[in-house]
Amino acid sequence: MAELPLAPVERIMRKIGLSEGVDRVSERAVQELRDELESIAVELSKKSAIYSKHAGRKTITHEDVRLAREQK
Amino acid sequence: MAELPLAPVERIMRKIGLSEGVDRVSERAVQELRDELESIAVELSKKSAIYSKHAGRKTITHEDVRLAREQK
Repeated sequence: MAELPLAPVERIMRKIGLSEGVDRVSERAVQELRDELESIAVELSKKSAIYSKHAGRKTITHEDVRLAREQK
Repeated sequence: MAELPLAPVERIMRKIGLSEGVDRVSERAVQELRDELESIAVELSKKSAIYSKHAGRKTITHEDVRLAREQK
């Protein structure tokens, strides 16, 4: 089940679309981008948790997230 | 200004963290992941809008988003 809401993703797409001269966004397009962001969030969270454990911690820190992002 | 809310990002991190044996997530870690997702959303929206225009449309469709995702 997806956690990320559709409305803010739609706002981003509309804003960027307008700046490129595209004035509409389909509902499925919003869902597609939300699903992609959700799966990136899961993947980066998993890597972050693994790096956190590897460092002997029980708390995920921003440095774990940065390392996960750079390892993509 | 970020559109994506922190709370759902935090829920994803906590859930995945727990499944990896990491039971806490710092506030900055949540912000770091949210900011990363926001910038991916902007980048993919921009590519999607460009593909939409290129196809002679004024509506971003899920196929534009899929192509943008594959071009990463």
